[in-house]
Amino acid sequence: MTQDRISAQLAFLTEADRLKSIQRATTLCDASRRENSAEHSWHIALYALTLAEHAERPVNIGRVIQMILLHDIVEIDAGDAPIHGGPDPAIQAIKEQKAADRIFGILPADQRDHYRALWEEFEAAETDDAIFAKSIDRVQPLIANLETGGGSWIEYDVTAQQLETRVGVKVRRGAPKVWQALKQRIDTWFAENRG
Amino acid sequence: MTQDRISAQLAFLTEADRLKSIQRATTLCDASRRENSAEHSWHIALYALTLAEHAERPVNIGRVIQMILLHDIVEIDAGDAPIHGGPDPAIQAIKEQKAADRIFGILPADQRDHYRALWEEFEAAETDDAIFAKSIDRVQPLIANLETGGGSWIEYDVTAQQLETRVGVKVRRGAPKVWQALKQRIDTWFAENRG
Repeated sequence: MTQDRISAQLAFLTEADRLKSIQRATTLCDASRRENSAEHSWHIALYALTLAEHAERPVNIGRVIQMILLHDIVEIDAGDAPIHGGPDPAIQAIKEQKAADRIFGILPADQRDHYRALWEEFEAAETDDAIFAKSIDRVQPLIANLETGGGSWIEYDVTAQQLETRVGVKVRRGAPKVWQALKQRIDTWFAENRG
Repeated sequence: MTQDRISAQLAFLTEADRLKSIQRATTLCDASRRENSAEHSWHIALYALTLAEHAERPVNIGRVIQMILLHDIVEIDAGDAPIHGGPDPAIQAIKEQKAADRIFGILPADQRDHYRALWEEFEAAETDDAIFAKSIDRVQPLIANLETGGGSWIEYDVTAQQLETRVGVKVRRGAPKVWQALKQRIDTWFAENRG
């Protein structure tokens, strides 16, 4: 029994390896190449751990990190949906549900249900843990864009108003002090490039 | 004060981005390219979460995952030391201590000390949490080698005895049931390729 269980778990972990080949719109901070969703997941887990003290409401950082480790795995089948210039959210959501069925379905049933619930919680963004996790997921690409002189803001011709709607509202909801720390750099970039 | 603290934390997180450019000896499971240390860190965090129930002794999975998120950051300065064919361990250890001074030193002092202590605990591999984290760090590249028909075992001409000393002992120490689940595939590969 234990060996069957481990076999299923290892099959899931081997499937998860494919997340390293899913490219995102954002580049590395040195602009050398596009970031992939696996290394992005590591980076925002480290962001969440380091910035947890600034969460707007108290969070269980262990749960936040678990959500983050799992949050992009559906992209193996559904692909990345960029914040700016992404596909129709309703169609993407259907693809992601199918992906979750297949990929989490590789696991033993109890673990499948546990991971699925954590992923659904992240997507719904209603609990304090999920709200903070979502805010961190938005902060990291924002910083990559600042570091590379605009990044995907240039590529997708993003306006200050679009950044506010797609990113600002979500970051402030979970981590307002982090947004405050970045606001001057953001305002300067948009004033200079979209003025 | 808070804004200075966040600035230091964001500077550390931006520096950490460079881990995505540190290449490891191991390739992805589809052999398409070498793995980098950032995506490896995500993958073994997911391994640890998924396989924690098979730890030889009870672990605090939150602490294990924190160690894993931090365990390779020193490679930004010191480079990756492959399991097979790596540099002199004593020289590498000095490089890694210097790297830890610089990189964790970007953080506010309390967080610098906390992360440094977690990294030192991982390196020492004496606590139950660190023993399990180390065993998982050895399992993931082993599976990548099995998936790619040999991988770095071929490149570094690894014998069954070397695998036992460098990998087997460490995996069994923290997660013997996981080793048991892989043993037949490993024995078959070495019988067919090193017989």
